[in-house]
Amino acid sequence: MSSNVFTLPRGMRDMDPEEMTRRLWLYEKIRGVALRYGFRMVEPTTIENLKTLEAKSGPGIRDEIYWFKDKGGRSLGLRFDLTVGLARMIAGRYDLPEPIKYATIGGNWRYDEPQFARYRYFTQWDVEIFGSASPFADAEVICVGIDILTELGLKDFVIRISNRKLAEAYLKQLGIGSGEKLEQCLRIIDKVRKENRAQLAKEFGEIKVDDEIVDRIFSYISLNGTPGAVLDRLASLTLTEPEAKTGLKELETLADALAALGRLDRCLYDMSIVRGIGYYDGIVFECFDKGGEDVGSIFGGGRYDKLCRIYGKRDIPATGVAGGIERLMISLERANLFPKSRLGPKVFIASAQEASRLDAGRLAQSLRDSGIPAEFDLKGRPLGKQIEYANSIGVPYLIVVGPQEVASNSVKVKAMATRVETLVPMPEVAAKLRELN
Amino acid sequence: MSSNVFTLPRGMRDMDPEEMTRRLWLYEKIRGVALRYGFRMVEPTTIENLKTLEAKSGPGIRDEIYWFKDKGGRSLGLRFDLTVGLARMIAGRYDLPEPIKYATIGGNWRYDEPQFARYRYFTQWDVEIFGSASPFADAEVICVGIDILTELGLKDFVIRISNRKLAEAYLKQLGIGSGEKLEQCLRIIDKVRKENRAQLAKEFGEIKVDDEIVDRIFSYISLNGTPGAVLDRLASLTLTEPEAKTGLKELETLADALAALGRLDRCLYDMSIVRGIGYYDGIVFECFDKGGEDVGSIFGGGRYDKLCRIYGKRDIPATGVAGGIERLMISLERANLFPKSRLGPKVFIASAQEASRLDAGRLAQSLRDSGIPAEFDLKGRPLGKQIEYANSIGVPYLIVVGPQEVASNSVKVKAMATRVETLVPMPEVAAKLRELN
Repeated sequence: MSSNVFTLPRGMRDMDPEEMTRRLWLYEKIRGVALRYGFRMVEPTTIENLKTLEAKSGPGIRDEIYWFKDKGGRSLGLRFDLTVGLARMIAGRYDLPEPIKYATIGGNWRYDEPQFARYRYFTQWDVEIFGSASPFADAEVICVGIDILTELGLKDFVIRISNRKLAEAYLKQLGIGSGEKLEQCLRIIDKVRKENRAQLAKEFGEIKVDDEIVDRIFSYISLNGTPGAVLDRLASLTLTEPEAKTGLKELETLADALAALGRLDRCLYDMSIVRGIGYYDGIVFECFDKGGEDVGSIFGGGRYDKLCRIYGKRDIPATGVAGGIERLMISLERANLFPKSRLGPKVFIASAQEASRLDAGRLAQSLRDSGIPAEFDLKGRPLGKQIEYANSIGVPYLIVVGPQEVASNSVKVKAMATRVETLVPMPEVAAKLRELN
Repeated sequence: MSSNVFTLPRGMRDMDPEEMTRRLWLYEKIRGVALRYGFRMVEPTTIENLKTLEAKSGPGIRDEIYWFKDKGGRSLGLRFDLTVGLARMIAGRYDLPEPIKYATIGGNWRYDEPQFARYRYFTQWDVEIFGSASPFADAEVICVGIDILTELGLKDFVIRISNRKLAEAYLKQLGIGSGEKLEQCLRIIDKVRKENRAQLAKEFGEIKVDDEIVDRIFSYISLNGTPGAVLDRLASLTLTEPEAKTGLKELETLADALAALGRLDRCLYDMSIVRGIGYYDGIVFECFDKGGEDVGSIFGGGRYDKLCRIYGKRDIPATGVAGGIERLMISLERANLFPKSRLGPKVFIASAQEASRLDAGRLAQSLRDSGIPAEFDLKGRPLGKQIEYANSIGVPYLIVVGPQEVASNSVKVKAMATRVETLVPMPEVAAKLRELN
């Protein structure tokens, strides 16, 4: 049987020690920010009933996810995002004080065509506020996103913010109407960072939007700049739909809230941001990192006041933000922001001869008990081979234990990089290693 | 559409904030111990090709796991343990220095009948050493298990250790032979903690083991006690099979290693431990916690020198230990060992009136920036309702911000439990809250 029989399924990966160490560091940073904002960590189930997943996205979602019938004939699906599960978790709960602030980091599965930085199993961080219709809640989730990137050391990013109520009402006012055609328009606008104006105009033409209206759409979606400047220009538009005025008001309050929370300078208002996904219905935003625009937005989110009603029996206003871990790791890698972590032990305790192995183990264990990561030989190798192994795993310090060391109750601690050796009494080895870098 | 349409699939669960907080604490403790022993954290893929899963456990495994065909017609399966993935990860790697010491914590799926503390999605911790045939490696994984429980505060547990080479060779010597009948015998012995002697004797009778042999099997599996005492009694058995002698020698070396590593007093040798699973072929062990024997062993493991050959082209001796997180949490809960964690923010900044909300937000944000978990009102509620919310989420400190506080640049920090209020200048609030418990 050839070994390549056991390859991984397409789009699936193992996480090696280097990646896992980076992920654990990253998860801890993200959780730290969420907890500062009063969010509580949760995790929704990995497997949902298929109808739960379809309720958000329609039966078409079957083509994009992993779903199957279980042995009892029930249709189940692997979660494709974290928002569905979080919304379902809180929708039936009448006992929780509102706003309910939940955060989660978890794996998701999608049957996408794998491409650069996109896998069929991927991890997202997700922060949601349920029970507040106020733009202050939108401001808070935007701040969480900003603080996560800042905490990680990213500097060159910007949040582009808009409002779906305003966009949809303005498109209606232009005669687009509602329903299918409106959604098609939003989907075309959503491609503004991927296609040029001629391509977009062609697509508008295909769904029979007049050239003059297309010009006015372009003029609307090209509105972008500092929140103050964009709000001024929006104020000069004649808005006839009440929803447009509500959307504008939300953007005004959001700017005040972001200013009070000290994060306004990270934000631009940009009317080309609509987020194609159907369920958004208020403030929407996407964050772009200048070192990684080729791989899309680094996080995004917005308000979805109507989604929770699907899963419960009542409206629960909701807003949230989510980002892809794999996407974020690319930005951190490019900006060289991952800390240099030592993998493996701090010290290797070699045995000078086979008979010294128990003594080496004894010393290694006393160091572990003092919190110092230590290894000793588990293969019964001669000393030279042990040192070769210690070198190959990149251990910074080496101690050789033999009859002489046991008799004198002291050992030499050797720094592998400098080859400097220090004689240390056995009971002081842990303290010595703790002070060494 | 009724809300109960969106129940969870059978055997699946969401993790709420209380549980998630406990899990994160637990995972960190487990990782801490693994890292002290020089293990590296990894995670194998969640979805494997079905044939990878079948290679370990045979096609019968299909009945016990979640498997399905993907849209390309390939048979895939959700991982049912972490050992398969870890073994596959290292089997094809010729570049890694040995021993390879990998640890992981991750979710697994099994299509079991759900019962107390057993779900269809469950989490395991798993620590494996690949590339050492020495009982020192077995000693090390046993020590990791012991240290995890000790680190968590559990005191009343014992590791029961045996050797499959010895058990199988001794059964052969009794005339059981090898193959199917031997495996049936091992499966019957594996039930020793669930069924009484009469039941077991009946099962031996059903597979045609003579009464006299059954007596000798009972006499063998009733050998248990301190390693020294059991080794003495084993030495007095007449062992004719070479494998039996090898197994006995391994147990002798293991006792020496466990003594040097200072963990021998946690261990008993117990010949009734065989672990029914087919692939074990050397030292085997299970850990029992006296507060939770009703839910089975708290961790278990052993040597499986032949498994890696299935996934690669070479023998790689291997030993490891794994435990169930849900099972472990029951023991910790019963022993009241989970720390009391605060969920939610440390302080709530209420606004005395709607116009003060931006000021409240400003103070909350400055506290967050100083690392203090803080919340302010996101719903535009009157003061009384804000304080009701603060109470309901169990926040320990409350600050009310109004025009007077802004004018005097000072606020009262109120301890919710004692109702004691302290007047603090605005710039010193973070420092004050940091010193308060």
